[in-house]
Amino acid sequence: MTEIKIFSPATVANVSCGFDVLGFCLDGVGDEMIVRKTKDKGVKISKIEGYDLPTEATKNVAGVAALALLEDAQPDFGFEIEIYKHIKPGSGVGSSSASASGSVFAINELLGRPYSKTQLTYFAMKGEALASGSEHADNIAPGIFGGFTLVKSTAPLEVVQLPTPDDMFAVIIHPQIEIKTSEARAILPKDIPLKNAITQWANLGSLVHGLHTNDYQMIKRSLIDVVVEPYRSQLIPYYDEVKLSAFNNGALGCGISGSGPSIFTLCQGQSQAQQVELAMREVYSKTEIAFNTYSCKINTAGIRILSTNV
Amino acid sequence: MTEIKIFSPATVANVSCGFDVLGFCLDGVGDEMIVRKTKDKGVKISKIEGYDLPTEATKNVAGVAALALLEDAQPDFGFEIEIYKHIKPGSGVGSSSASASGSVFAINELLGRPYSKTQLTYFAMKGEALASGSEHADNIAPGIFGGFTLVKSTAPLEVVQLPTPDDMFAVIIHPQIEIKTSEARAILPKDIPLKNAITQWANLGSLVHGLHTNDYQMIKRSLIDVVVEPYRSQLIPYYDEVKLSAFNNGALGCGISGSGPSIFTLCQGQSQAQQVELAMREVYSKTEIAFNTYSCKINTAGIRILSTNV
Repeated sequence: MTEIKIFSPATVANVSCGFDVLGFCLDGVGDEMIVRKTKDKGVKISKIEGYDLPTEATKNVAGVAALALLEDAQPDFGFEIEIYKHIKPGSGVGSSSASASGSVFAINELLGRPYSKTQLTYFAMKGEALASGSEHADNIAPGIFGGFTLVKSTAPLEVVQLPTPDDMFAVIIHPQIEIKTSEARAILPKDIPLKNAITQWANLGSLVHGLHTNDYQMIKRSLIDVVVEPYRSQLIPYYDEVKLSAFNNGALGCGISGSGPSIFTLCQGQSQAQQVELAMREVYSKTEIAFNTYSCKINTAGIRILSTNV
Repeated sequence: MTEIKIFSPATVANVSCGFDVLGFCLDGVGDEMIVRKTKDKGVKISKIEGYDLPTEATKNVAGVAALALLEDAQPDFGFEIEIYKHIKPGSGVGSSSASASGSVFAINELLGRPYSKTQLTYFAMKGEALASGSEHADNIAPGIFGGFTLVKSTAPLEVVQLPTPDDMFAVIIHPQIEIKTSEARAILPKDIPLKNAITQWANLGSLVHGLHTNDYQMIKRSLIDVVVEPYRSQLIPYYDEVKLSAFNNGALGCGISGSGPSIFTLCQGQSQAQQVELAMREVYSKTEIAFNTYSCKINTAGIRILSTNV
């Protein structure tokens, strides 16, 4: 195999009570990438379609992630990457992570899978750091592992793959506004009340239990964020209205995807997801803000191979 | 049945990353209580052996918990309670909780079990409030439910019963010093760094996952407290030495039991627990401080019936 085409899905990070650690993988929405071996060493981004992003390898998250892997692998050949971007940068569903994860996933396949999923996550974090300024894995891990993932720690990197209940769907609404990552960060307090922290970890503990026991009602009672949402939701117009409409239509949970502006909901079953999607659309339809929505089953496989040349 | 004798075990609360929410149930160490129906309504504490505690029902945690239950049940008879206390008050392993939990458990049996475990926890919390000044369930829940419990919230009360790996043992060392609850509380900051809170909830999330998957190594990597231990451990002489010796001898985790002064460790298997117990004893043997230790398998049954008169 000298060429591979993959689908690298969008992901949701900062899932309610799991701020900075819990994420899940979407389906149907994602980037496509073609990676092929080249005689020349190093990494070349030969094409980017969809959005205007740097093609210089050291300035592109996919390139930086690939270079981190190659620095370790030291093959006597190189790689050429084509990126067909469908995830809008800055939308809050892991656009840069999808590029970084996809690139190392594809190269690992072309090398005969020498690296574990955790190692791939580690390399992809190097790319993510270029985009966000710090090494995060909470969007990368769900792309590489699939389903729900908990990043227990980044140094040393440890990713916990959580079980995903069979009938779990996500709905995303992306209001077309810009939230600067710097602003989303600056709005967070450095210190939080111990009382709120306790509430948050109790909820994360019971959420993990609910995922293990397929207990949708416990999942619903646990998908609460008392720490970050009160601050960041101020940056998203009509956030409270969207959330209320989601809950009124049976959503299990609703929160800010990543650092926004996208809003996610989790739902039990496809028909509930469709109903919630309609209700969320209705809220923004009454405003001047452009938006798009999509719903899908939680993607438990993560990044997938579309084709290879062998 | 008009009379019941029960064993109400000691418990560990504030388990490492699960401060204020996570507890587990011990075995072999606990109070015995005899509760019998009386023609007279109300609650009478007819005997307390072991420690000097108030026998007036409204001033005794067992009495207050029983009265809370009876206010709801409204039977046309009453109860007499004998308490044979073996858990030293103030030792940090749920002495008051054992009395409060045992009393409502026994009365519920004598009434034909009208109440759920969660309801019993609720009534026992009323007794616990007398001892601690606020309603906590993190020592009560493991006694009533057995095994590891997560108190997801107290208002409304929701207890999550977590799975207990088969071969999980606990070791307790109780240095005979007094830590005032007020001091243990005052030493805690009201606010904590968001960064530390994130570490804590990541660890609690992976601990719950480890309990579900019998993954002792993940449990070990998760039994970390970056929020409370740095403060409260200062109140316990030789804490760091005990912890180091426990880890050097293979303990999965080591932390402050409740608000101290007892220190707990969790171990995989009985022989490891015995080795850890010896190592911890050795630390305090070299000091002037009197102490005692015990080790046991985690008690997954909780409070148990010793005998009834039918």
